[in-house]
Amino acid sequence: MIRKQRLFTPGPTALHPAVQEAAARPILHHRTDEFREIFRHSALGLKKFLKTEGDVLILACSGTGAMEAALVNVLSPGEAMLALVAGAFGQRWVDIGRAHGMDVRTLEAPWGDAVPPGRVAEALDRDPTVRAVFVQLSESSTGARYDIEALARITRQRPGTLLVVDAISGAGAMALDTQAWGVDVVVVGSQKALALPPGLAFVALGPRAWERAEAALAPRFYFDLRRERKAQAGGEPGFTPAISLVVALRSALAFVEDLGGVDALVQNAGTLAAMTRAAAGALGLPLVAPKDHGDALTALYPPGSIDSAAIVKGLKSEFGSTVAGGQGALKGRILRVAHLGYYDTTDTLGLLGTLEIVLQRLGHRFPPGAGVAAAEAEYLKRQAGR
Amino acid sequence: MIRKQRLFTPGPTALHPAVQEAAARPILHHRTDEFREIFRHSALGLKKFLKTEGDVLILACSGTGAMEAALVNVLSPGEAMLALVAGAFGQRWVDIGRAHGMDVRTLEAPWGDAVPPGRVAEALDRDPTVRAVFVQLSESSTGARYDIEALARITRQRPGTLLVVDAISGAGAMALDTQAWGVDVVVVGSQKALALPPGLAFVALGPRAWERAEAALAPRFYFDLRRERKAQAGGEPGFTPAISLVVALRSALAFVEDLGGVDALVQNAGTLAAMTRAAAGALGLPLVAPKDHGDALTALYPPGSIDSAAIVKGLKSEFGSTVAGGQGALKGRILRVAHLGYYDTTDTLGLLGTLEIVLQRLGHRFPPGAGVAAAEAEYLKRQAGR
Repeated sequence: MIRKQRLFTPGPTALHPAVQEAAARPILHHRTDEFREIFRHSALGLKKFLKTEGDVLILACSGTGAMEAALVNVLSPGEAMLALVAGAFGQRWVDIGRAHGMDVRTLEAPWGDAVPPGRVAEALDRDPTVRAVFVQLSESSTGARYDIEALARITRQRPGTLLVVDAISGAGAMALDTQAWGVDVVVVGSQKALALPPGLAFVALGPRAWERAEAALAPRFYFDLRRERKAQAGGEPGFTPAISLVVALRSALAFVEDLGGVDALVQNAGTLAAMTRAAAGALGLPLVAPKDHGDALTALYPPGSIDSAAIVKGLKSEFGSTVAGGQGALKGRILRVAHLGYYDTTDTLGLLGTLEIVLQRLGHRFPPGAGVAAAEAEYLKRQAGR
Repeated sequence: MIRKQRLFTPGPTALHPAVQEAAARPILHHRTDEFREIFRHSALGLKKFLKTEGDVLILACSGTGAMEAALVNVLSPGEAMLALVAGAFGQRWVDIGRAHGMDVRTLEAPWGDAVPPGRVAEALDRDPTVRAVFVQLSESSTGARYDIEALARITRQRPGTLLVVDAISGAGAMALDTQAWGVDVVVVGSQKALALPPGLAFVALGPRAWERAEAALAPRFYFDLRRERKAQAGGEPGFTPAISLVVALRSALAFVEDLGGVDALVQNAGTLAAMTRAAAGALGLPLVAPKDHGDALTALYPPGSIDSAAIVKGLKSEFGSTVAGGQGALKGRILRVAHLGYYDTTDTLGLLGTLEIVLQRLGHRFPPGAGVAAAEAEYLKRQAGR
C-alpha cells in the first residue's frame, strides 16, 4: 500500500505548499534592498501574528536558542527567577537559568496540569526579589495550557517582575494577546503554527523587557537583542540570516492572513483539538491534560494495557503517519498528536481512522467508527456554534 | 478552517511529490544525450508498467489524442470497427471513428454495466469484417470494468480483428497484462495512476497492430506512429516532447518500482476501492456499477432524495476536496471518487469522514461513523487475506 509520509508531530509540522515553494527559490543576498524589504515585511507580519506593536526580532536559531536569548537579555547572573514546571519545557527554563548562573526557583505541578496563577501570585508575594517568571503558553510535553492572561495580570502589578512566555508551540494555536495582556517577552519557533521548516525563532519584547535588556549583565553576543534591535530596524539582522526561511516566512504569514488572520488559525487548531479529544474519549484513551488541556496538541495515554510505543509504531509503519511519543517523565508512556499549523479536518479524520485500525490490530475493543463519529459530532457542534 | 485542496478526481489525480519536484527542474534540451537517456529509460519503464515487450510510444497529447492515434493507425477509412458503449468514454471511440469516416458499429449496455464478452464474440461471428474492437479497461464515467482478458481471448482467435483498449484511467489501477493477454493496442494517460500532470499519453502496440499500422490508410501526420516508432527507438520523439513531463515520468516510474511495481499500485487502488464500496454500502449510497465495478474509481448515486451536486459542492466548499460529478447521461446524478494513483488509506478515510459530515448536513440519516467503520473493516479483511 502507498504510505504518504505525514507529520502529526507538534513541530516540525506539515509545511504549507506556498512555504515549500518559497523556500526552494534561488537564494537572495541579504545585504540588498530586495531582502531588506522582505525582512521588514515579515517582521511587521509577526507583530500582527503576536498582537503587539513592540519589536519582534527574527533570529537564526531553534526555539531553545530564542528561549536562551530571552533569558540572558532580562536577567543578570545571580538574580532570582521563577520557572513554572509541569513538563519537559518548563524544566528547560530551569536548565537555561542554571547554565547562566541564575538563582532558579520553581513552582511545580504534576505533569499534565498547569501551575495555577494563584500559586504564582502567592510565591511572588512571598518573594518579591524574583526578577522574572518563566512559563509556557503550551507545555508541549503534556499538551497542557497555562493561563497566560492571568499570569500577566499578576506580573503587570509587580514593577520588578517580568513575564517571559515560551509560546513556541502555542502561538497561532491558542489565544495570545501579547500587548493587551501585557506579556513582557514572547518566544516563538518557525516549525510550529507558522508551518515553516525549523531554523528561525522570533522574540517579541515589550517596553519593560527592553529596559531590562539595557541593564542586564548576563554575558551574550549572538543573542544580544540590543544589537539585533538596532540592526533589524534597518531591515538586516546582525549576522547572516537564514535567508530562504525568511523568504518562506513571508509566504507563511500571507497564508495566515488569507485564512483570516491568527484568530482563524487558532480556531482551526481549536476545532481539530476538540475533535481529537472527543475521539479519544469515545475510544477510551485518557487525556494527559484533562483539566488544563490546550489546543496546540493532544497528549493521550494508551487504553488499557496497550503499549503507547506500539501505537506510534503502527501508525508510522502501516500508514506513514508520525505522531510523537512522550518526553522526559512521560517517555514511552503517551502519544502526542499535533493540531498547530497546517492541518485540516480531512487530515484529522484520516489520522483518527487509521488510529482506529491500529487500536483494533492491538486488540483494543471499541465500536469501530466510534472515534471518528465523535470527532464528526464535535466538528458539527463547533461549526454550528460559530 | 484550513481547507487543503485535494483532488479525488479520476484524473488529474494528486501528484507524487517526487514528480512535482522533477517537473519543476530547469529545462533540458531534448536533442541531447542527457534527454535521450531519460527518454529511453522512461520508455523501458512503461513496458514494465504495461507488461509488454512491445514498443510503448510517448506522445505529447491528452489521452483522447492517443485514442485517436491508436485508431488512425489501425484502420483505413470506411473499414468496420466495433465500439463497446456503456458510458461516455465508449462513446468517444464512436465519435473518433466517425470523424475519420469509419463504418462504426456499436454494442451497447446500460451505463454502469459492461458489455459482456459473450455478446462481442457473437457480434464478431455475425460480422467478420470488423477490423478492430474498441473498449475501455475502466469506463471512467461509471466506474465499470471490462473483462479485457476475455475480450483478448476472443480477438486473438480472429486474425482480422484487433483489440484496442483505452486503459487511460485503468492501467495501474486494475490488472492489465498486455502481452500475455494478447491485447493489440493499449492507450494510457499521464494524469492517472502514474500521478503525473496531464500532457503525456502512451500507446503500446503489439506485432499485429504494427502490421496494421504499415498498411492503414487513415490520414495522419502528428499521430503517425510509424514515424514515432523509428524516431523514439533513437531516444527522440518526432516532434518537440513535453520535456519536463518526460523527466517527471522517470520519477513517477521510479515511485511505482519502489512501491513494488505495478501490481502493488493495482493492489493499493483495489484496497481503497473496496474500502469505499464498503463505506458506500454502510451509508446507503448505491453503486453505479454494482456488478461490473472496477477499482480505478467508484461512482455512487446519492442516497434518497439528496442532490449529488450538493454533496460534490459540500465536499469542495467545506473541506477543499474535489470529487467528480457525472458525465453525459449521468451528469448531475452521481459522484465519482478516484482510487487510481497516489492515494493512501489516510486519504480515503479522511475523505469518507468528511463525506459523512456532508451527508449529515444534508439531512441523510445513518449511524455516524458507519461508513468509516465499514471501510476500516474492509481494510483489515484485505490485509489479513494477503
